[in-house]
Amino acid sequence: MTTPISMYQVLVPTAQRTLANLATILDKATEHTEAKNIDPVVLVGSRLYPDMFPLARQVQIASDAVKGAASRLAGVENPSWPDEEKTLQELKARIQKTIDYLGSFKPEQIDGSEDKAIVVKTRLGELNFKGTDFLLGFALPNFFFHVTTAYNILRHNGIEIGKQDYLGRR
Amino acid sequence: MTTPISMYQVLVPTAQRTLANLATILDKATEHTEAKNIDPVVLVGSRLYPDMFPLARQVQIASDAVKGAASRLAGVENPSWPDEEKTLQELKARIQKTIDYLGSFKPEQIDGSEDKAIVVKTRLGELNFKGTDFLLGFALPNFFFHVTTAYNILRHNGIEIGKQDYLGRR
Repeated sequence: MTTPISMYQVLVPTAQRTLANLATILDKATEHTEAKNIDPVVLVGSRLYPDMFPLARQVQIASDAVKGAASRLAGVENPSWPDEEKTLQELKARIQKTIDYLGSFKPEQIDGSEDKAIVVKTRLGELNFKGTDFLLGFALPNFFFHVTTAYNILRHNGIEIGKQDYLGRR
Repeated sequence: MTTPISMYQVLVPTAQRTLANLATILDKATEHTEAKNIDPVVLVGSRLYPDMFPLARQVQIASDAVKGAASRLAGVENPSWPDEEKTLQELKARIQKTIDYLGSFKPEQIDGSEDKAIVVKTRLGELNFKGTDFLLGFALPNFFFHVTTAYNILRHNGIEIGKQDYLGRR
């Protein structure tokens, strides 16, 4: 018997796995700063271009993307978390908090939300989706975008990470 | 009646939408090079770090990731495409070829592949997955990684693109 793919499965274990990999990447960044005597605050504030967001904000938005996705698909209030992380360790804690929050959802809270009306308020106005389009066309691409950009900021700064760290080792 | 999310839906329309957005991003890069009198070949070979892949390779790997995913989940031979693109226009053509290839699959070829045994040969050895883990834990994260890195390379070079270009305008 095949277990059909589900909304919960597409979101929760997928995001938890990638967030755990991102935490490992931040550990490697921490080791690098220690070995090379670099102030780790430099990495937290590092950007790929002057008007792009720095590392800290990339991690915060990745966190918000999947926190908001789970909350909205489940129809529970989306908690607001302050964006106050200033160190790699604090960013790791934010990642763990996100993994734990996702883990608080049961499959039956998110499964069946394919046609649910989802409203997202952005700087550019209100976006309206059905559940599936929200998950596949907005929340997940946005999540992977910010995790990858966090990775790219670190890679651009010479941290020795590879795509296996992003995908996770098997 | 809710239409349940499916393997086809997670892969095919999701990847086609993101690839179409990437094509638009490459158009903006082309306009930028024309306006600023930049040899566009510079962008095609641009990297975020000396031992990272350049823009062309990022687009080629993104293409391969979803071409291979559709082929493997459907159980058809995965066509090998030469990586010969040297210009932004040729990269756009590669993207369109990928969109068209994905469009050649019918939902029933990919749906129901949740438990299908998938083998991927990589530089690091053979990876074995079930269909769902392959799609959610490998193919899609890999695809978004390379599209985002292509975006980041262009952004880092001053191309005026924003996340709305990556996500697509609604």
